[in-house]
Amino acid sequence: MVSWILSAGVRRVSSVLRRFSSVVSAGSARSGSGCQERLCPPLLSGDVDRFGGVTVRDFPPDISEDEFSELLRVSLSRWRSDGRVAAWLHVPIALSRLSAAAAHLGFSFHHARRDEAVLSLWLGPGEDRLPAFATHQVGVAGAVVDESNGKVLVVQDRNKTTNAWKFPGGLSDLGENIGETAVREVFEETGVRSQFCSLLSVRQQHNHPGAFGMSDMYLICRLSPLSFRIDFCTQECLRCEWLDLTELAKTSETTPITSRVARLLLYGLENGFQNIDLTMEQMPAVYSGRFYQLYHRRLPETP
Amino acid sequence: MVSWILSAGVRRVSSVLRRFSSVVSAGSARSGSGCQERLCPPLLSGDVDRFGGVTVRDFPPDISEDEFSELLRVSLSRWRSDGRVAAWLHVPIALSRLSAAAAHLGFSFHHARRDEAVLSLWLGPGEDRLPAFATHQVGVAGAVVDESNGKVLVVQDRNKTTNAWKFPGGLSDLGENIGETAVREVFEETGVRSQFCSLLSVRQQHNHPGAFGMSDMYLICRLSPLSFRIDFCTQECLRCEWLDLTELAKTSETTPITSRVARLLLYGLENGFQNIDLTMEQMPAVYSGRFYQLYHRRLPETP
Repeated sequence: MVSWILSAGVRRVSSVLRRFSSVVSAGSARSGSGCQERLCPPLLSGDVDRFGGVTVRDFPPDISEDEFSELLRVSLSRWRSDGRVAAWLHVPIALSRLSAAAAHLGFSFHHARRDEAVLSLWLGPGEDRLPAFATHQVGVAGAVVDESNGKVLVVQDRNKTTNAWKFPGGLSDLGENIGETAVREVFEETGVRSQFCSLLSVRQQHNHPGAFGMSDMYLICRLSPLSFRIDFCTQECLRCEWLDLTELAKTSETTPITSRVARLLLYGLENGFQNIDLTMEQMPAVYSGRFYQLYHRRLPETP
Repeated sequence: MVSWILSAGVRRVSSVLRRFSSVVSAGSARSGSGCQERLCPPLLSGDVDRFGGVTVRDFPPDISEDEFSELLRVSLSRWRSDGRVAAWLHVPIALSRLSAAAAHLGFSFHHARRDEAVLSLWLGPGEDRLPAFATHQVGVAGAVVDESNGKVLVVQDRNKTTNAWKFPGGLSDLGENIGETAVREVFEETGVRSQFCSLLSVRQQHNHPGAFGMSDMYLICRLSPLSFRIDFCTQECLRCEWLDLTELAKTSETTPITSRVARLLLYGLENGFQNIDLTMEQMPAVYSGRFYQLYHRRLPETP
């Protein structure tokens, strides 16, 4: 049964692929093995990257699992003999059956987003040296400190069993800077407008609940208020207050990390925030013309 | 043609699902709509989470795309009328054809790893409020400073066009702490053993080349050497040296961030590393019994 399907499948590969001659011929033309093109078996066409991996993005849209399996098997054999170290398949969600076929030949999911899955297979010598996909979600909280009276803006989550005071915050959207997340989340949760001053702390936690088995990087920023009237989000928060930093630093109605950062802020308030801040600077990336944000202790001005 | 396939598909759903009665009956039993079970259409069975989402992990293994499409359509209708706010499908790679069927009903990839894809669909009112998957890869570099002579361990990458001095480093493996990555990468690249002292800087960069469209968090740690003999990895590095910090701080043969951190280290060497360090403390997580790592400026001991 299986062999019949396979055999029928192989035949159909040829006819399907004749219809997708651009897909095939690019692969065949690139192979350069010297065989006459009509005698070469059809191959998937891919782009070779500078690391020696091949990436396939075009697939015949009505190819069956079995047909694709045979096409991929032949292509893998060629890529291996050509010394390719890895194969990447960018499979549109509508063609997901091809991912099942690829899995039979050793591929696994590298990642998937929205309407595309990316599968990979290491073909080189030794162990898999492919770079992994993103491993961390990034959460940011904002400690808005009113220097005029030593108060800080805190909330209690609606969804938690223990109602502990904490700084408003939440997950960064893709592409959002740390400080942007802090300012946005503070406004969404409390109605208070603020601006970014510095980074105060970094927490790393693995296997984080709610991170789908991945890790969490949680950053707390110091913000300064631009408005003071609280209009908090009742969906997310049970309470929201401007609380004395001295009180937050000693209350047991808070989380260990909030308590720690409250003490840090209190020290900064009394001795200067330069003692606790990591300042941010925007710098140009070498290769791309884009910018990145660098945070570290402020250096004294060079003379 | 489509209607025939669908109609044949629906019939087969019933027979397939009779064979997977546990899958179906759990869903039907949970529905509590008061209809007699034999009259209810078959439903996918899922677990309801505390946010009101339903997660399906069990699928009939030989169901077709069309059969699954009908089963999912009926299940979605029930979930919507039951007030579920989201649906999650954990689809094994071998059943990837089901992802294509789900996409036709509005699902998209939330994420995928190894042999499983997770698809999601927001069913609640208003805009999608599902938490996103991990957005950042984490890279860590280690600046190994020999305090006895003011030298720091630097490398030049083999694969870069400009041969600039930089600190050895690389991507964190999933579940690896920041300091562990620094120590491991330094050893793999240079052969030098070291121990973690502190975190010095954090860089965030979006749409990072090599991060598959995601963001990059790059952290530089200060390490102290436990051995000094260099035995560098010729696959990764072109050169590896113990270089004077003063020279690294002023050379143009380096990257802007390395230069900046060299100046920071020089300041620390001359005025005390407590001026530049973020110290690490391991703390217990409130809810899980696990531990996390917290980094911030050291607080003076409380009296």
